[in-house]
Amino acid sequence: MGWSEGFIAVDWGTTNRRAYLVGSGGALADEMEDEKGILAIPAGGFPPAVAELRERLGERPMLMGGMVGSNRGWIEAPYVPCPAGLDELAAHVIWAEEGRTAVVPGLSFLDDRRADVMRGEEVQLFGALAAGLIPGTGLVCHPGTHNKWIRLEAGRVTRFQTVMTGELFNLLKEHSILCDLLQAEVGPDEEFERGVLHGLSDEDLTAELFSVRARVLLGRAERGKAASYTSGLLIGTDLRIGLRQADQGEVAVMARPELTRLYAAALKAAGWASREVDGEQAFLAGAKQLAETMR
Amino acid sequence: MGWSEGFIAVDWGTTNRRAYLVGSGGALADEMEDEKGILAIPAGGFPPAVAELRERLGERPMLMGGMVGSNRGWIEAPYVPCPAGLDELAAHVIWAEEGRTAVVPGLSFLDDRRADVMRGEEVQLFGALAAGLIPGTGLVCHPGTHNKWIRLEAGRVTRFQTVMTGELFNLLKEHSILCDLLQAEVGPDEEFERGVLHGLSDEDLTAELFSVRARVLLGRAERGKAASYTSGLLIGTDLRIGLRQADQGEVAVMARPELTRLYAAALKAAGWASREVDGEQAFLAGAKQLAETMR
Repeated sequence: MGWSEGFIAVDWGTTNRRAYLVGSGGALADEMEDEKGILAIPAGGFPPAVAELRERLGERPMLMGGMVGSNRGWIEAPYVPCPAGLDELAAHVIWAEEGRTAVVPGLSFLDDRRADVMRGEEVQLFGALAAGLIPGTGLVCHPGTHNKWIRLEAGRVTRFQTVMTGELFNLLKEHSILCDLLQAEVGPDEEFERGVLHGLSDEDLTAELFSVRARVLLGRAERGKAASYTSGLLIGTDLRIGLRQADQGEVAVMARPELTRLYAAALKAAGWASREVDGEQAFLAGAKQLAETMR
Repeated sequence: MGWSEGFIAVDWGTTNRRAYLVGSGGALADEMEDEKGILAIPAGGFPPAVAELRERLGERPMLMGGMVGSNRGWIEAPYVPCPAGLDELAAHVIWAEEGRTAVVPGLSFLDDRRADVMRGEEVQLFGALAAGLIPGTGLVCHPGTHNKWIRLEAGRVTRFQTVMTGELFNLLKEHSILCDLLQAEVGPDEEFERGVLHGLSDEDLTAELFSVRARVLLGRAERGKAASYTSGLLIGTDLRIGLRQADQGEVAVMARPELTRLYAAALKAAGWASREVDGEQAFLAGAKQLAETMR
């Protein structure tokens, strides 16, 4: 069963998984998505869950990225320390089934002040690079539950920083005193931009969040606009932190299109140019690039 | 049934209520606490819930502060705008039962940039003032689910700011990716102080929270110390925001003793002197002071 005859690429996250059948010529032949993220897999459940993917997509070699390689996943693929490029990543792939099923490691970053980890974004990142979607030197912003600001130098990741923006918004929306105000849809509108500008200039997020509620209580803001403002506030705060790593030029924003759209709007409000990159395309490009090294 | 023969003071919050029988001479004669906060009272349930307090503590006039006067409580006592002192508060008491059951209003603050509200802390604040526990001019920090930084000038509240510190810590502890790291007890130890100093100097809270987890994953921090560090980080961030309103001198910290202890330790790490005030004693002093105006 050779890699050159095609393979299955799996982006296996915490709450769902996406699998793609890549044909021998590199074209996408089939795909599937379900909610069998690693948290949904019981003890001993990975071999049948992997077999299920092959039953659905074909008896092919398989390359898996994301939380499946974490200590809560199937088999741990230890973090590769930065600076690191695609070669280091490929060299540290862990074989869950020798020659047949590969698990891609994540990346780690350490300095005197900070520690950071990523797992899943690195496949997209090197894929976008290989596909020429982003330059080899620059700043990449990867929004999601945990936004990653990734610094690239000559095609290698030299440092990165995670900001818990998506998770915090979800916590506030699901469980906080603001929850009834945050159910409305968030869009890159005027209120969103006001929130971004506040987050960029002030450093009082944990206070301003309460002000969102107080303004509504005191009749100074419309209830329906609080969600966009709060999202903007968190993303503006995120940009204030992440853009410390930026030099001039544009920022590449890579994720699902609905997220890249929000971050691109926020970057524009901050006076930065951006280019949006589709995370799924980037993942596929990265998986193909890694599969090349396995032939 | 006159106020001079004694009364019942009720601190009625969101999740619990505390009631005190104050004798004719002002001494505490009896008290009770239960979990019948306003969220536990069904529609139409306040009259029997109030009757229950009188059955337990005696047929006395009653003064109620806290969320019972909010739009989710029994009867709304609209916010009194700052600047405001005890006189304005007393003048805007709402009678749920004329002459017999009084609901104390909260305070609001508005300027060009911020909106804020408090409900419950104001009784404690004016009580501490009346009892000589805090000076008439200075900064008061009132930790809790929502920490309040209150600026007093000549015995009146001129401005205040709420920071969502306690609620954020609880959200992270109950529902976030950090939850397994935050179950340990928090104390004013070395890790707490390190967190405070980070929060005071850096403005990257939403990133540093993720670093807490990454340090443990990468073996750079002990799992058991993450809770104290994270609490310190949030409280240090809180101080960085709140101390903007401070001039020289000490900060009065008023709340439950386990909270004032943490904030006093954080203030000390920040180079500020503080005095701790017991919130329950302050509430009783405030209730007595307000009851005086009803005789």
